[in-house]
Amino acid sequence: MLDVEVALAEALAEAGVIPPTSLAPIRNAARAERYDLVALDAEATLAGNPVIPLVRHLTSAVAAEDPTAAGHVHWGATSQDVMDTALVLELREAGAGIAATLGRAGDAAARLAERYAATPIAGRTWLQQATPTTFGAKAMVWMQGLDRARARLLSTLDAAGDLQFGGATGSLSTLGDAGPQVAAALAAKLGLRAPDAAWHTERSRVADVACALGIACGTLGKIGRDVALLAQTEIGEVAEPTAEGRGGSSSMPHKRNPVGSVRAVSAAVRAPGLVATMLAAMPQEHERAIGGWQAEWETLPELVALAADASAAMTDTLAHLSVDEARMRANLDAAGGVARAEGLMAALAPRVGRVEAARLVEAAVRHAATRGQALAEVAQADEAIRKHLDTAAIEQALDPIALTATARDIVRRSLRHREVDRREHDHG
Amino acid sequence: MLDVEVALAEALAEAGVIPPTSLAPIRNAARAERYDLVALDAEATLAGNPVIPLVRHLTSAVAAEDPTAAGHVHWGATSQDVMDTALVLELREAGAGIAATLGRAGDAAARLAERYAATPIAGRTWLQQATPTTFGAKAMVWMQGLDRARARLLSTLDAAGDLQFGGATGSLSTLGDAGPQVAAALAAKLGLRAPDAAWHTERSRVADVACALGIACGTLGKIGRDVALLAQTEIGEVAEPTAEGRGGSSSMPHKRNPVGSVRAVSAAVRAPGLVATMLAAMPQEHERAIGGWQAEWETLPELVALAADASAAMTDTLAHLSVDEARMRANLDAAGGVARAEGLMAALAPRVGRVEAARLVEAAVRHAATRGQALAEVAQADEAIRKHLDTAAIEQALDPIALTATARDIVRRSLRHREVDRREHDHG
Amino acid sequence: MLDVEVALAEALAEAGVIPPTSLAPIRNAARAERYDLVALDAEATLAGNPVIPLVRHLTSAVAAEDPTAAGHVHWGATSQDVMDTALVLELREAGAGIAATLGRAGDAAARLAERYAATPIAGRTWLQQATPTTFGAKAMVWMQGLDRARARLLSTLDAAGDLQFGGATGSLSTLGDAGPQVAAALAAKLGLRAPDAAWHTERSRVADVACALGIACGTLGKIGRDVALLAQTEIGEVAEPTAEGRGGSSSMPHKRNPVGSVRAVSAAVRAPGLVATMLAAMPQEHERAIGGWQAEWETLPELVALAADASAAMTDTLAHLSVDEARMRANLDAAGGVARAEGLMAALAPRVGRVEAARLVEAAVRHAATRGQALAEVAQADEAIRKHLDTAAIEQALDPIALTATARDIVRRSLRHREVDRREHDHG
Amino acid sequence: MLDVEVALAEALAEAGVIPPTSLAPIRNAARAERYDLVALDAEATLAGNPVIPLVRHLTSAVAAEDPTAAGHVHWGATSQDVMDTALVLELREAGAGIAATLGRAGDAAARLAERYAATPIAGRTWLQQATPTTFGAKAMVWMQGLDRARARLLSTLDAAGDLQFGGATGSLSTLGDAGPQVAAALAAKLGLRAPDAAWHTERSRVADVACALGIACGTLGKIGRDVALLAQTEIGEVAEPTAEGRGGSSSMPHKRNPVGSVRAVSAAVRAPGLVATMLAAMPQEHERAIGGWQAEWETLPELVALAADASAAMTDTLAHLSVDEARMRANLDAAGGVARAEGLMAALAPRVGRVEAARLVEAAVRHAATRGQALAEVAQADEAIRKHLDTAAIEQALDPIALTATARDIVRRSLRHREVDRREHDHG
Repeated sequence: MLDVEVALAEALAEAGVIPPTSLAPIRNAARAERYDLVALDAEATLAGNPVIPLVRHLTSAVAAEDPTAAGHVHWGATSQDVMDTALVLELREAGAGIAATLGRAGDAAARLAERYAATPIAGRTWLQQATPTTFGAKAMVWMQGLDRARARLLSTLDAAGDLQFGGATGSLSTLGDAGPQVAAALAAKLGLRAPDAAWHTERSRVADVACALGIACGTLGKIGRDVALLAQTEIGEVAEPTAEGRGGSSSMPHKRNPVGSVRAVSAAVRAPGLVATMLAAMPQEHERAIGGWQAEWETLPELVALAADASAAMTDTLAHLSVDEARMRANLDAAGGVARAEGLMAALAPRVGRVEAARLVEAAVRHAATRGQALAEVAQADEAIRKHLDTAAIEQALDPIALTATARDIVRRSLRHREVDRREHDHG
Repeated sequence: MLDVEVALAEALAEAGVIPPTSLAPIRNAARAERYDLVALDAEATLAGNPVIPLVRHLTSAVAAEDPTAAGHVHWGATSQDVMDTALVLELREAGAGIAATLGRAGDAAARLAERYAATPIAGRTWLQQATPTTFGAKAMVWMQGLDRARARLLSTLDAAGDLQFGGATGSLSTLGDAGPQVAAALAAKLGLRAPDAAWHTERSRVADVACALGIACGTLGKIGRDVALLAQTEIGEVAEPTAEGRGGSSSMPHKRNPVGSVRAVSAAVRAPGLVATMLAAMPQEHERAIGGWQAEWETLPELVALAADASAAMTDTLAHLSVDEARMRANLDAAGGVARAEGLMAALAPRVGRVEAARLVEAAVRHAATRGQALAEVAQADEAIRKHLDTAAIEQALDPIALTATARDIVRRSLRHREVDRREHDHG
Repeated sequence: MLDVEVALAEALAEAGVIPPTSLAPIRNAARAERYDLVALDAEATLAGNPVIPLVRHLTSAVAAEDPTAAGHVHWGATSQDVMDTALVLELREAGAGIAATLGRAGDAAARLAERYAATPIAGRTWLQQATPTTFGAKAMVWMQGLDRARARLLSTLDAAGDLQFGGATGSLSTLGDAGPQVAAALAAKLGLRAPDAAWHTERSRVADVACALGIACGTLGKIGRDVALLAQTEIGEVAEPTAEGRGGSSSMPHKRNPVGSVRAVSAAVRAPGLVATMLAAMPQEHERAIGGWQAEWETLPELVALAADASAAMTDTLAHLSVDEARMRANLDAAGGVARAEGLMAALAPRVGRVEAARLVEAAVRHAATRGQALAEVAQADEAIRKHLDTAAIEQALDPIALTATARDIVRRSLRHREVDRREHDHG
Repeated sequence: MLDVEVALAEALAEAGVIPPTSLAPIRNAARAERYDLVALDAEATLAGNPVIPLVRHLTSAVAAEDPTAAGHVHWGATSQDVMDTALVLELREAGAGIAATLGRAGDAAARLAERYAATPIAGRTWLQQATPTTFGAKAMVWMQGLDRARARLLSTLDAAGDLQFGGATGSLSTLGDAGPQVAAALAAKLGLRAPDAAWHTERSRVADVACALGIACGTLGKIGRDVALLAQTEIGEVAEPTAEGRGGSSSMPHKRNPVGSVRAVSAAVRAPGLVATMLAAMPQEHERAIGGWQAEWETLPELVALAADASAAMTDTLAHLSVDEARMRANLDAAGGVARAEGLMAALAPRVGRVEAARLVEAAVRHAATRGQALAEVAQADEAIRKHLDTAAIEQALDPIALTATARDIVRRSLRHREVDRREHDHG
């Protein structure tokens, strides 16, 4: 906020609204360490916002050096101009950091996708084993979510990069004809755009950033939940990285809790309510809100903190994830391999029609389940099936590598496209 | 959903996966009027989703005409492929309608902005009169919100226009090598893009549309609340259009309730919770969710309905708003015109410094309030003020037209920019 | 709403405000089947609420039979009186149904708790196996949640059982001195309490019911999620009941999807946003809201429907749950039984202190994990441990039945208390 | 949390589980000032919760004094036992404070209700003047909301006053037979109830407190919004108290912003999203959550802080509210007094029937509006009306004092009932 006050004074001086001699005293006084934050907090509650007491203290500090300059502090601005512009500056910085972290998380997911593109793993729908896929394909879905979340965040941050500057009710009336010039100079100094008009009570810019942060948290939460599910003791296909003091349990030395993933899931539980608050705050009255604007003050920073923490947690988790390919294969073979039944059906259907194929496979599956045999064995011994498929064909139909070839190809194509996008973006 | 099944059959036939002879029976059976929606609803609850019973009935209907073709129904697809693709098609249609309505609402606001660009009205912050602005400037803020809401909705709809097609766990394994070709043909038939991979549990596309609808509702709610506040009996600056049966009260014949605005405010109260649900639903397990996807089914359509209703209500309200310029002026003059004190301060400050100016004006305001006089009178009679400003200068400093000239200019510039944007867009 | 209009007429007649001769015509006209709901819907949108057109049509219908009686329709009431009172009546009925279903779900959970009170199962924290507990103890936690949800719902329904009756702005001014008497009679006829004053814009009663429904959905969602997790292919400790058309998959005949649980989880994802809407709607303006009240209209019924569906789904699921005790035991033994390490530590600690016990156990666990041996074997062979515990003591320390004796006792005590509560309640 | 650890040690010693000699070292070490909160925070992120590092540091500190006692720290407990029990203790204290503040706010509202029981004010529905009521009746509605919010909070706090103590997975297995005794002693020491079982993942207690806090915020927000609306420049019926530095505007010296009310409205905008988070967090997995429990940690304290701040703000605002009875009357007379038309209708209806009365009054109202005359004048001159009502009757029908007699009586009865409740409660 002090940076905004200084830039405002500079812009006013450039436009000739205040004399250049007022700049040095304002710059000298506008150093954050000179202000008592605890006192400001109490005064802000009474005043209605923190800018009122801040400007009062700033003005006093300037006055001690140069009484004339004191009259030029905050000239033409209203409290919300300063708070919102400071917010935009902070969002730009924090948002860029989150976007970079999402980028690193996406890279880590891409490396997993590449490395395990052809590693069979049980596909799971409704938490039940379904047709097999590859672990790389799972990681690719994570990667795509992260890349999209990053792109969306960057574009909303860009769209929100607008100076807030309108004076009491948006018209910059105090500055008269100099208004547009001061606004343009102020925006330029802060690296922001000067929009057509102030957006005091048109909150779509900040609501949009909130939504992008919420979507990022939801995306990270999906990955965190998947990792925690894969890390279950009974599944054990992945494990979070270990470190001194990380995820242990004093009473249970064998525990390796998915603490990184849980930070992401927790963020995904919290973000929706905070985004809802930002949206609920949108209908702001006339030229300054009674409640809506004020409700944003702590909510948006919390969303930023959540997204920052969750993206850091998942970047670390994905970059150092332990992957157990043998357990993936073992789980896939468990329950007699019935999760691969679709392969058998796909092989039979062109020969006997889908309805009859389903009937045959269903019988074999039931057979395998009842006798505790592997589906492959049952199928090889099933005369009705053998009428249409020979030994090799049945083997092929139930081979996880063959069954997941399409998954592998999808992963590789997706990684190629990502590579191209990256290269274009670097040159663009 | 039936349209998707038909397009799928056509794409499968084109790729040579199923024979062209199966198309006619499938097309014949896939007519919505042949299905019992009430029965489907109950079956869907039991089955877990509506596609399972729908495909069962569709298959039977096809089988009655051509048993072979029955085996080609829904080939390669999973239930979620059909539901999500149908959702994207519906969002595209409904979303375009909402965007068009938002466009019309923006046009109505633009007309108000143009017509009343120079009409003084009290600016109001914290619901207290602040410096004056113009009614056109208020309408311009509404217009900008509506235009941004429309642009955001269109861009998220575009980004969400991706086919969902992955089969049971995303790899299109049933189709083998033909998968990509079938996907491309299916997307082309439906006018959608074929993305790199299925997005069964990567829900950012639909979450993003939900956010855009939520922001639209928030924007409309801000306008509705402003209109309802301006229409208060004691303020009376605008009134909603009248019509037979609209907004009356049986027991109070004089009432003219702002029913259109209230529809928008109500939508803005409801949308945040629904958007929160869509975000909370994002962390979907593995390749198919247990709860998250299912939670979207009724939530997103409700958001669509809310945004459609609120945008229609505000379009009608803005297009036929009664505006009472005389009341605007009278309210501005009420309370002795103290809301214009900033004008006096702005005139004095360059001459006596901001601190002294504030002191002089504050004294005059207190004086006016105590004696129940107009601030103009008090200022003209105040010797301390007259030392620095003559009669004409004081008059000018408190003249609403002069005080709102900057507001008027901002409105006109903003309307010019809108005109340019529109023209570019029409040619682009 | 028609029932409320009839009861109002009766109360007015009793108080002598209208003649008894008006009752028959009003009763005759107030039959729901006489009204066109589709037309009412459109008229309600225009009018601002459904009562206005309903009363208009009701009045016409009465007038056709008795013009004088037409003047007595809706006398003294405002639209919100009728809508809110009708809402309370509907909540009472629907709420009682949900409470009864929650009661049945609690009974089903209690039966599971009793039957499996001593059946060891892996306790799971962070989705990692922790110390063992019993399946009965898990079911007991479900039972307690259901019982609490039911009790809370019943008490909020009771607290919300207040007549809404205040006329236009709450004072029943149209009825003059007869107001209190009419209110008391109307409340008595409908089986409601007559509160001190109308609660048109004091919405805590309905917000409270919404919260109780939200808590019920959250409770059911916890159970649903637990069941879905226990039903995972790799865990397989429980399965949802099977039925024709229930939870299958056309392409994967082996699937047994936890469709009942998912209905509950989905409700738990949706309810929070709807409860948030009810709370966000609370700050209702003056004597009638612009948006808040209207936002309740569809939101509360949805919460009711969600809670009704989720409680029915979990009642059915719990009442017919397949339980696989052998899988519970097998999973507990998997990974060498290290989840029982706490038992060993508890046995060692009194002898060597907690710190040294932890050191010894941690070493044994690591040993077991490295060699793929069972912890029991390793411990029996570990000299450092054997110094303090003999063969029987080690066996006992790692015996799941012994380790879960406290869990079993807690379950049984809790069931006894439930029995006592039930008996007292039946007599009370 | 340290208090819980000390009480646990005491309970363990009482039950003979640990020797009494361990108590002094544990008590000595368990002093909050000995711990580095910043370091704990970082360690907590890594460990998964703050209790793990806290217990580690506590154990070290105890060990420095008495190595044996170090082995008795945290015995039998799990991290969540300590965090949740500490939470319950904090909720009890903070909750009692909020309830007391709500009580004071209710008292302030009751004083307004009493003082202004018979002061006419425009009733306002849809923000339009409706039939008159009294300012005391408005304050009574505030009072009732505050009293209900307080009662609800107290009852949920009471219901949530349960010890959390179950060890790793809820069975207190480490303590063997001593478990129930230790639990009872621990609960007694902390002034809590010992429930039948641990509630680690049965979160209805804390969800319920969150709901009560959310309802309190909604209630306070309704009052805050009403006050801000009444304080509008154009209405001016109330004003918030003034104080140095309170609610002013540097650039607009006449402003008197409703800062207290806005704190309450802002809390009402934020609370719903936070309550939604607490409800969304309820479906917690098995015996310890992955995300849900963690999401509560910052959310519930924020709700507490919001409710505390909003209740303090409204207590101050209501206790020192400036009330302008003259403006209330003037606003009521504005617009020709048409808001009192219902009075005329009520007087005519018994004589000519409701339909004809409505016709007559509507004509008079239109007449008054067109000519800018007061409704009283028009009515007195209207022959059709005079046929049924004489001068005195018309005067009486439009007299605000007469029209609001029922409102006054309702207020007084409600205050009497409050007095009785208070007296009973003090004796009970």
